[in-house]
Amino acid sequence: MIQADDIHGKVLYEDAEHTFIWLGAESKYRKGAVQTMQYLIIDKGRGVLLDPGGVHLFSRVVTAVSRFISVDKIDTIFFSHQDPDVSSGIALWLGITNAKVYISELWIRFLPHFGIVDMERMIGVPDKGMDIMLPSNSRMRCIPSHFMHSPGQFGLFDERSGILFTGDIGAAVFGEHEETLFVENFDEHVSFIKDFHTRYMASNAIVRRWTENVRRLNPRMIAPQHGAVYKGENVETFLNWLSELKCGLDYMDTLF
Amino acid sequence: MIQADDIHGKVLYEDAEHTFIWLGAESKYRKGAVQTMQYLIIDKGRGVLLDPGGVHLFSRVVTAVSRFISVDKIDTIFFSHQDPDVSSGIALWLGITNAKVYISELWIRFLPHFGIVDMERMIGVPDKGMDIMLPSNSRMRCIPSHFMHSPGQFGLFDERSGILFTGDIGAAVFGEHEETLFVENFDEHVSFIKDFHTRYMASNAIVRRWTENVRRLNPRMIAPQHGAVYKGENVETFLNWLSELKCGLDYMDTLF
Repeated sequence: MIQADDIHGKVLYEDAEHTFIWLGAESKYRKGAVQTMQYLIIDKGRGVLLDPGGVHLFSRVVTAVSRFISVDKIDTIFFSHQDPDVSSGIALWLGITNAKVYISELWIRFLPHFGIVDMERMIGVPDKGMDIMLPSNSRMRCIPSHFMHSPGQFGLFDERSGILFTGDIGAAVFGEHEETLFVENFDEHVSFIKDFHTRYMASNAIVRRWTENVRRLNPRMIAPQHGAVYKGENVETFLNWLSELKCGLDYMDTLF
Repeated sequence: MIQADDIHGKVLYEDAEHTFIWLGAESKYRKGAVQTMQYLIIDKGRGVLLDPGGVHLFSRVVTAVSRFISVDKIDTIFFSHQDPDVSSGIALWLGITNAKVYISELWIRFLPHFGIVDMERMIGVPDKGMDIMLPSNSRMRCIPSHFMHSPGQFGLFDERSGILFTGDIGAAVFGEHEETLFVENFDEHVSFIKDFHTRYMASNAIVRRWTENVRRLNPRMIAPQHGAVYKGENVETFLNWLSELKCGLDYMDTLF
């Protein structure tokens, strides 16, 4: 269970200029829809929203953001990929902020299908990634995560907090009342992540390459869009587990 | 250019009980958004809609459908995968029809993020595919197309017409005024399909397996969701081209 104190969000990192916030759990388990997590970075009073989510979460996420910062101070929205649970609220978010939107250049021409989108505010991230600078001069790095699962997917590494936002990578599918904010027991957690990663990630070759790159970043936490946050020794434990996982095309005969 | 006679749609197959219709081109090139194609099957007076598309196409597609059949006679909506240009209009379509929606079981829990969705009308297609029977007793077969690009993707083979709807497979990205309904010169057409397939499809191993399976169906036409329809010798020519294509993970060093 998510602790009652945390239901409205929790600060994962904080210094005088910079805060990394998990935006809280839905107050009620929403039957039939995959649960999502949103994050907000505040740097010198300006906001960055990570995977703010779909149309049906919009009112909840706006409310959650407004507990920490005025919504019109959001300058940057980062989408890890194009899935509905990640990005289908884009037209609503563009309407209430002046934010620029970062997403893989593979999806730039697909987003207008969610509704009216001002293309001049869309920034296509090239395959090898790019940096996004913050007001404090801290750097966020777009980390290539292609074919895990989306052909054009990025994580976002916030250098100042050491937190790596990973989108679908590390995502857990919890049952009702099983949610926790942090991974508590990795061995038990495997039962919530194994099926998802085995089926949606494209192959061991690519997850292995990704884990090698991520180890070089030495992240303090791994924060996915579903499930629970990895911190402490669970970061390395998760990377070790993933690097050995056979998945996707490795089981081609089950796919046809 | 699309012929003026075809702008409102074209019948690709017709017999006394069964019609397969391409639903026409957008009258105006929509700047910045990838172009999409929709198809309608009418069988004994009841309708099947294939990838009807996103929110911003809804009014155009409703109008196009209504030229051929009353919208409330649509019993079945088929989504090849979860992308915004395919399925983001789902809540609108569920509102004006009583249709059941077929999509890979991988995406069932993601679709509610597009808005209010009645889960009892959603049918998850298992990885190996399934058949969908029509009022005439003709059969449509869901053809596994996973990781091309979506981890959970299906084509739909309409046995009666011999037309295989492929979603993103075979998709072309045309410039303004370059669109045609049918592929006219395959060698020239390669310039419109090569970059897309090379980057979005997961690997040669999987496209090769898919082409082997599709050859066994012996389709008369291949109808993708973007670009142009393959018929006659271009069906085999396209399958030969695709089966040899290196793509996705085959170029892993360019992805990181």
